[in-house]
Amino acid sequence: MWDRFLRACRREPVDVTPVWFMRQAGRYMAEYRAIREKYKLLEICRTPELAVEVTLQPVRALGVDAAILFADILLPIEPMGVAFDFAAGEGPVIERPVTDAAAVDRLRLFDPEEGLGHVLAAVRSLRAELDNKTPLIGFAGAPFTLASYLIEGGKSSNYAETKRLMYNEPKVWNALLEKLAEVVRRYLVAQIAAGAHAVQLFDSWVGQLAPNDYAAYVQPHVRHILSGLGESGVPVIHFGTGTATLLELQRDAGGSVLGVDWRVPLDQARARLGNGVAVQGNLDPLLLQAPRELLAARVDEVLERAGKLPGHIFNLGHGILPETSPDAVKFVVDRVHANSSR
Amino acid sequence: MWDRFLRACRREPVDVTPVWFMRQAGRYMAEYRAIREKYKLLEICRTPELAVEVTLQPVRALGVDAAILFADILLPIEPMGVAFDFAAGEGPVIERPVTDAAAVDRLRLFDPEEGLGHVLAAVRSLRAELDNKTPLIGFAGAPFTLASYLIEGGKSSNYAETKRLMYNEPKVWNALLEKLAEVVRRYLVAQIAAGAHAVQLFDSWVGQLAPNDYAAYVQPHVRHILSGLGESGVPVIHFGTGTATLLELQRDAGGSVLGVDWRVPLDQARARLGNGVAVQGNLDPLLLQAPRELLAARVDEVLERAGKLPGHIFNLGHGILPETSPDAVKFVVDRVHANSSR
Repeated sequence: MWDRFLRACRREPVDVTPVWFMRQAGRYMAEYRAIREKYKLLEICRTPELAVEVTLQPVRALGVDAAILFADILLPIEPMGVAFDFAAGEGPVIERPVTDAAAVDRLRLFDPEEGLGHVLAAVRSLRAELDNKTPLIGFAGAPFTLASYLIEGGKSSNYAETKRLMYNEPKVWNALLEKLAEVVRRYLVAQIAAGAHAVQLFDSWVGQLAPNDYAAYVQPHVRHILSGLGESGVPVIHFGTGTATLLELQRDAGGSVLGVDWRVPLDQARARLGNGVAVQGNLDPLLLQAPRELLAARVDEVLERAGKLPGHIFNLGHGILPETSPDAVKFVVDRVHANSSR
Repeated sequence: MWDRFLRACRREPVDVTPVWFMRQAGRYMAEYRAIREKYKLLEICRTPELAVEVTLQPVRALGVDAAILFADILLPIEPMGVAFDFAAGEGPVIERPVTDAAAVDRLRLFDPEEGLGHVLAAVRSLRAELDNKTPLIGFAGAPFTLASYLIEGGKSSNYAETKRLMYNEPKVWNALLEKLAEVVRRYLVAQIAAGAHAVQLFDSWVGQLAPNDYAAYVQPHVRHILSGLGESGVPVIHFGTGTATLLELQRDAGGSVLGVDWRVPLDQARARLGNGVAVQGNLDPLLLQAPRELLAARVDEVLERAGKLPGHIFNLGHGILPETSPDAVKFVVDRVHANSSR
């Protein structure tokens, strides 16, 4: 069943639970490391042939039920006018963080075909290469998460700069998130037009916020994106980590699938969220580095907690770590398929 | 009412809601910075006169309802045999991380009067200085949080080393957490014997774990500590961050008060936890750097969500940040007292 991932996103019956992994293309695979020896991360992202190759590696090796475009959530900030790079072994570094009204004013909205044409070219190639045998997931970062990088200049431990701007300069904050939301909306629309069967919105760090702050400062901007995609009809996965108390607000902001991390047992997530939305998750990525017996038991527990109702996509709660064995990942794919037949 | 903090811990009626702050002694205060110019952090911790002075600074300046001993959760690891220091502007650095059975075997249990006599001397002095006008809180780190520093060698972003050991070497893990739990239990018993009116157990990073992992790998060790303190009769605050899905398991591990961070609205926390435990929290520390009007509204919201039943101690969801204005902290103290009279 080539489209079991898409069917599960729509909460339609499937033969077995679909499974894919965040960062399924990455350093844990020898094939990927071989390419990374020759090219930098951003070179791969910006060269459609390389992005296509890297996207396809885990599809060939693992038998996952979806391919996810190889890219980085920060790609859109460059055509907005913000230069960044990845320091060796570190996360991203933004040259000039965006911290005031003037910097927000300078941020450009852009036509995705012009600013990110290489990504859309990769989507088109992938759509042809995959030949409707495996669905393709496009993606983008969500406004809060992108804003946190822009404001902090990189990854943060407590998001102090981000929250200071949010609380003290709500007009600047809203102008920034409005621009990011519109950029992301256009980018996702373009990915869908280029052939993505589904898209995922990564609000990876939004779990730093209290529910009232999420509702006041973030939810309207996410809703702008997700309500603007609804007409496309493709499934939209709305993902975050540390979001145990935000799930209902995230659901209400939009998306056909809610991504849930390992902190929230899926039976509780489904009970809280109701039947109007599918769920994706939620194994702790470190369990891929646990003994096989424990890994097996925890995979089975995720399936059991997800239950028999349609609408579960198996995934981790966050991305695969570089130290992971590909054998463990393949083991999970096979076990999910074997132990979820209906 | 000198003991409104202790009464609230015991869920007894109080005149107004008691308030104190994690890291209420710290770099945000000029008085503290003046001392830090002359002494290193660990020198202050290890010199009773300095620890006493720094502990008293916020009591004098702010009118908080409790003093908390100035110390660091890592102090007990040195008499266990693990050297550490604070890098300039960074977190702690453990010289030789504890990552195998041999290293765990080498860890020493110790008599707190010998290994941490300077802390207990500070507690005794503080008890005399405070003269039953302000209650004194002692504290220690919890086994998971301490283990994460020992294993990672410092602060971590994803706790990968910690979880790898936990999943792959459960015997080593349990031996490590058993030793830490016994060290912490003895240390807290000694602080109580030296005069602490209450103690707080800081499991600051345990919110990284799924509930089933918490139950399997952490809860028994926390229970060893907290059940071993019950006879003392002093209130015990059990604190963590990012613990939205762990609250019931933490309550069941013990403690008379559960610390809750800003991610969990206090009305939801109290509804879930029932009337057998008090709650402490839960303003986002960054709100202390927000405009006064917003800060006021959010203080009032915390009080409202905490409700009128006895058993709420006002605090932040985590420690005060160095960039905070003491005026904002004082404003919160006064507002909590003014807007919570019963």
